[in-house]
Amino acid sequence: VALLGLGRVGSAVARLTLGDAWCRAAFTITGALVRNTAARAGVPFPVVSDARALLDSEPEVVVEVLGGIEPARSIVLAALERGIPVITANKSLLARCGDELFDLSERTGTPLRHEAAVIAGVPFLCAFSGRPFASRVSHLSAILNGTSNFILTQVASGTGFDAALDLARRLGYAEPDASLDLDGTDAAEKLTILARHFGGLSLQPGQIARDGIARLTREDLRCAGAFGGTIKPLACAAWADAPAAWVGPAFIRGDHPLFPVRGIANGICLESRLTPPLVFSGPGAGPEATAATILDDVLNAHRTEPVVRGTGAIGQTAEGLGRVTVSEPPTGWFVRVSHPADRLDPLGVADLLSTFDVWIQRTSTPSDTAAPNALWLLTHPCERARLDAALHALRAAARCDTCTVRVVETTHE
Amino acid sequence: VALLGLGRVGSAVARLTLGDAWCRAAFTITGALVRNTAARAGVPFPVVSDARALLDSEPEVVVEVLGGIEPARSIVLAALERGIPVITANKSLLARCGDELFDLSERTGTPLRHEAAVIAGVPFLCAFSGRPFASRVSHLSAILNGTSNFILTQVASGTGFDAALDLARRLGYAEPDASLDLDGTDAAEKLTILARHFGGLSLQPGQIARDGIARLTREDLRCAGAFGGTIKPLACAAWADAPAAWVGPAFIRGDHPLFPVRGIANGICLESRLTPPLVFSGPGAGPEATAATILDDVLNAHRTEPVVRGTGAIGQTAEGLGRVTVSEPPTGWFVRVSHPADRLDPLGVADLLSTFDVWIQRTSTPSDTAAPNALWLLTHPCERARLDAALHALRAAARCDTCTVRVVETTHE
Repeated sequence: VALLGLGRVGSAVARLTLGDAWCRAAFTITGALVRNTAARAGVPFPVVSDARALLDSEPEVVVEVLGGIEPARSIVLAALERGIPVITANKSLLARCGDELFDLSERTGTPLRHEAAVIAGVPFLCAFSGRPFASRVSHLSAILNGTSNFILTQVASGTGFDAALDLARRLGYAEPDASLDLDGTDAAEKLTILARHFGGLSLQPGQIARDGIARLTREDLRCAGAFGGTIKPLACAAWADAPAAWVGPAFIRGDHPLFPVRGIANGICLESRLTPPLVFSGPGAGPEATAATILDDVLNAHRTEPVVRGTGAIGQTAEGLGRVTVSEPPTGWFVRVSHPADRLDPLGVADLLSTFDVWIQRTSTPSDTAAPNALWLLTHPCERARLDAALHALRAAARCDTCTVRVVETTHE
Repeated sequence: VALLGLGRVGSAVARLTLGDAWCRAAFTITGALVRNTAARAGVPFPVVSDARALLDSEPEVVVEVLGGIEPARSIVLAALERGIPVITANKSLLARCGDELFDLSERTGTPLRHEAAVIAGVPFLCAFSGRPFASRVSHLSAILNGTSNFILTQVASGTGFDAALDLARRLGYAEPDASLDLDGTDAAEKLTILARHFGGLSLQPGQIARDGIARLTREDLRCAGAFGGTIKPLACAAWADAPAAWVGPAFIRGDHPLFPVRGIANGICLESRLTPPLVFSGPGAGPEATAATILDDVLNAHRTEPVVRGTGAIGQTAEGLGRVTVSEPPTGWFVRVSHPADRLDPLGVADLLSTFDVWIQRTSTPSDTAAPNALWLLTHPCERARLDAALHALRAAARCDTCTVRVVETTHE
């Protein structure tokens, strides 16, 4: 095994491989690519700073844990060209260069495994590759970012947003700069990988509409609880009709399969209209979980599946593949309406929204006096444009602020 | 593909294969074994009543959907001896003759796939075969019987037990004789397959303690709700210390990963003490879901995994395999205490139980007047023997009846 990178995940891979007799018998690390070889003098395998030298040593498998696009992309392409199977946990690389990489993998017949790139600790992509019947799903919703899920879980239990973010940092669940986690960029990258795998869609992360979670408050989560649900950082895609994809916080009810996925756990709910959803959840990140998944991929590096590309649903792959325009589906909405000074009249708000054909299902007023001039609503499904127009009119008429979160429901009863 | 059996699942396999152009190109049904060939005159492939003739036609794959032990066992053994891969959905066969069948599969290097035998509609066994790192789990809890789960879901929403059973029969979710579903036999068979796969345990279904769900009432489920949870038909196994396995209704809290697995859905929660649990859920049965899983297995019939036997946890398989004595773990208990005539004194009950070192966490009294002389308790964890002794004394002292259900919790925080 040649290791590209010895960061947190790369080190965990080395530790697992060297720390266990069974692993030492199964794998040998023939070398690792690092930026500064002098700084790694004590490592018990060769370290090099030249990728070509590493590939020239003819490893049986390349494990790419560099992260980022270059030089990862060039080295992975070179390895595939040489027929060396590649295992990667690099979601950004797959999200941005997936077409190129999977094309080359298919053309050369060289496996490119990436179980650890999405929901790193749960083997589920492998459960679908080569299983076209199980892969007949039409849409999915998922919790793909553990940092965001940890923070919203904390906020739901009464912690303030900033305190929750601090705690995530102290526990090592969030980087000092957590903006890519909080604004949905990380989840959008992972969603493109899932949309390719299950829907045969070729998307770029930039095509996916995304909202961050930073604007959510303790009171929002309390009201979500009062509505019998909670707010989760979701990533959703659908391809039965027009391809749809978006990332953002979403209100889900207590009976949604992702409701119990708490803290740093991740989960995915794969749906078709005909059967109960398939749900997979577990550890979403962490060097140890990621390294374990990578080593399982290494053991399977030479295994080939009967259907190589994307798997997709039967009869769906052919049309699906290719760049697509992404739409956002109509859903219900969880809306906070707040006024800087005055109390809001729920009936007046409902009346105004109804003139835009936006219909309210439930309302909730604050329980305490911390935010007496706010109001929370659950609407029936409608297009985002219609909701936006209605809320624009409401803000103008009532001089209030609004904050919106999608409602996500499972389609099967 | 040679089909053994043309019952509900066998017919669905044939329907799926013949009904879709992609499938017709991928598979051909070369023949089917049926009891009465005359009754199947219209079937568009050869039907025979002699298994030897079917194997002599040299099919590439044998799909066994006969159910039961014989003649399924003999024919599967004969196919494996000839090196023909076998796909089976027959849980009873694997539960009772697993040692013999998997030994022969390993000895002859002939795959024996059985994804459809447990949680038929969810590909999860395949996600662990050949993935020893992911398979490092120490215990599991699962909902393996859709009929029981449907009934308890109905009872939890206010239906009486008998009405829920009637509804399950009308919807085709329960056989006219549903006793093997309701008394835990079906779940115990499936649990032996999971205990072999994940724990390397060789169990017979008869070794597994089991309770049925038939004694549960609407009021029990209402009180479970009042305690913040529900009662589910669970099957549990653990092998980190002494092997433990049992099947029966269990109280789980609202934050348990299997809480949202409702109706006919099945689910499994694989745990270790170190990481969040891995959870898989989805359709547990039904001819269409089972047939789709079988056909995915057929497509993978010739694929071999790097680690063939049991997968097990690394370094665990060696000691684990072999017949074991099964213990039952200490857990908390959900207890109904009812008296035919008198009101019960909660403090008196708690006092008596405490002399047996059985400690009460919560109590609930009935909300309505239908059962005024009953009382529900949640206890702290204790051995079944200790609880039984305490309840025996309570019944003698207070002339009351008792009904007990285990409490199951996840171990990871």
